[in-house]
Amino acid sequence: MRKENISDAVIRRLPRYYRQLSELYARGITRISSLSLGREMGITASQIRQDFSCFGEFGQQGYGYRVKELCEEIGRILGVDRSHHLIIVGAGRLGKALLQNFPFSQCGFAVDAAFDSSPAVIGSTVNGVAVRDMDTIDVWIRENRVDVVVLTVPRNAAQEITDRLIALGVRGFWNFTNMELNNSNPDVKIEDIHFADSLLTLSYRISHD
Amino acid sequence: MRKENISDAVIRRLPRYYRQLSELYARGITRISSLSLGREMGITASQIRQDFSCFGEFGQQGYGYRVKELCEEIGRILGVDRSHHLIIVGAGRLGKALLQNFPFSQCGFAVDAAFDSSPAVIGSTVNGVAVRDMDTIDVWIRENRVDVVVLTVPRNAAQEITDRLIALGVRGFWNFTNMELNNSNPDVKIEDIHFADSLLTLSYRISHD
Repeated sequence: MRKENISDAVIRRLPRYYRQLSELYARGITRISSLSLGREMGITASQIRQDFSCFGEFGQQGYGYRVKELCEEIGRILGVDRSHHLIIVGAGRLGKALLQNFPFSQCGFAVDAAFDSSPAVIGSTVNGVAVRDMDTIDVWIRENRVDVVVLTVPRNAAQEITDRLIALGVRGFWNFTNMELNNSNPDVKIEDIHFADSLLTLSYRISHD
Repeated sequence: MRKENISDAVIRRLPRYYRQLSELYARGITRISSLSLGREMGITASQIRQDFSCFGEFGQQGYGYRVKELCEEIGRILGVDRSHHLIIVGAGRLGKALLQNFPFSQCGFAVDAAFDSSPAVIGSTVNGVAVRDMDTIDVWIRENRVDVVVLTVPRNAAQEITDRLIALGVRGFWNFTNMELNNSNPDVKIEDIHFADSLLTLSYRISHD
């Protein structure tokens, strides 16, 4: 059903649809028109219909979308039901904050381990996840499925560790290092979190009124 | 020079230009064509020229952009030179991680204080910033300039605290709570960090290969 070459912009809207529909469902709303959904999200109804048409037919003309079914279907498209496996590399403050607070399981990810090179944290447990010695990561990756590495290491170690992990076969990176990571392997997917871009956008908005 | 009604997409690319140009400058590159800049960023040269034309003329035909000057100019457009003042509301793990690791000053923000309601952290200092009692925030906001509040409170307290801060006159929010905050005041600017959207985008990418 899925068309090829779905644009980056459409893909980036999918999690927003998923989030919005989850909230609607939690509010007890069972059915919604593209017009109302668009109004909630600041998107036009025709944009929504066009986005969804990339993945098949979700609604019925004049009848609206069934919130629960649509939410589940988008979840499947996003891979939320696939039980992806994830490890955290870098168990400093940010790594620990993610381990404590981020709802990985709601996103379909099992957090299997964390790794760090500091003796101060190796052997500790954060929110039920053991922090292991970075020197043992090669063995771990050979013996366990790792779909995604959350990269929360210092900036100056980021590229070297990424290269090492790619060589070990890791293909997904959630990159919190604020470094643009070099990678020439098309199978490797890197998703960057750029906090600063977000704050600078806000800076622009409060500066131009 | 600045046109009105600059699109959200253009505004969101400005921090990326700023980041890219800063990196080029750090690498010793003093001049760059729109073609090369586009190649570095995965954007077309014509997109770049169109984006920049919203803010005036930055380059010279056939000559390229001067990296340092362009970077400074975009920084001014973003408000990096304005010495914005910021406080952090919620000094839990995430608030502390931001205080320790995020380069606020590079983004043009002075972090003046943090606030929390837990006696365990009130009175402590994180990276030179004092954590104050949440009960004293009203007085602080009346007596100090606060351009942006970084919201790192628990999800269930987010809306109530936001309403209180808006009533106190706060107009900029950097929202880490993963809650969509309700706000009907057009002068209030809220910038959300949605970690989950980013991880779900990555989930899609690793699921569809």
